[in-house]
Amino acid sequence: MNIDSFLDSLKYDQNGLVAAVVQDHASGEVLMVGWMNRKAVRGTLASGRTCFWSRSRQEYWVKGETSGNTQEVRAVYVDCDKDALLVKVDQRGAACHEGYRSCFFREVDSEGNETIVGERLTEAY
Amino acid sequence: MNIDSFLDSLKYDQNGLVAAVVQDHASGEVLMVGWMNRKAVRGTLASGRTCFWSRSRQEYWVKGETSGNTQEVRAVYVDCDKDALLVKVDQRGAACHEGYRSCFFREVDSEGNETIVGERLTEAY
Repeated sequence: MNIDSFLDSLKYDQNGLVAAVVQDHASGEVLMVGWMNRKAVRGTLASGRTCFWSRSRQEYWVKGETSGNTQEVRAVYVDCDKDALLVKVDQRGAACHEGYRSCFFREVDSEGNETIVGERLTEAY
Repeated sequence: MNIDSFLDSLKYDQNGLVAAVVQDHASGEVLMVGWMNRKAVRGTLASGRTCFWSRSRQEYWVKGETSGNTQEVRAVYVDCDKDALLVKVDQRGAACHEGYRSCFFREVDSEGNETIVGERLTEAY
């Protein structure tokens, strides 16, 4: 199969994006959710490093390009609707720019109270 | 904290939605990605069952309401940007409407080839 056929088969949203869940290959910890446009999906598959589209900065980025906290792709999965990807990675350092191993470092209880439960590896970067 | 303060603090996209990653509490398997509007986040936190907004059907739904394949919430986390939630659940039956345990039942290789790797528990529902 040509990679373009796979890229064509994805159901991009109105902004041309699919959601990408990044999970630690070894521990199973969910590290982050990012957004990928067609170029970022191609880049992720072809390079073996996660690539994203930043909705806030409106730019393409390779995870770890500036921080060094790269994500080496171990496996990629696509969901039934073809609008989301699951990427299992070997994470180098903290996945979160706030220095936590995972971006999901705050737990929320049934009344909306937030508690920091995640492991902080470094200062914010 | 009032639950409304938490709901106010989330960064909903232009359609009023946040992404919600649903993960099996026991196995760590990522089961699905859904979308939640404010009402669905509230419903999930308050009821202990996952609630979503269906982008395709444009309607509110409680997971398992028709299929019986409910998701009992064990823990909820919010990410650094507050535009994504991670919900750990006890999944009853198949999470995927195609009958697979997880919606991410297809693996994609670096050339875009897809292989079914997920466990199918039932027929599509």
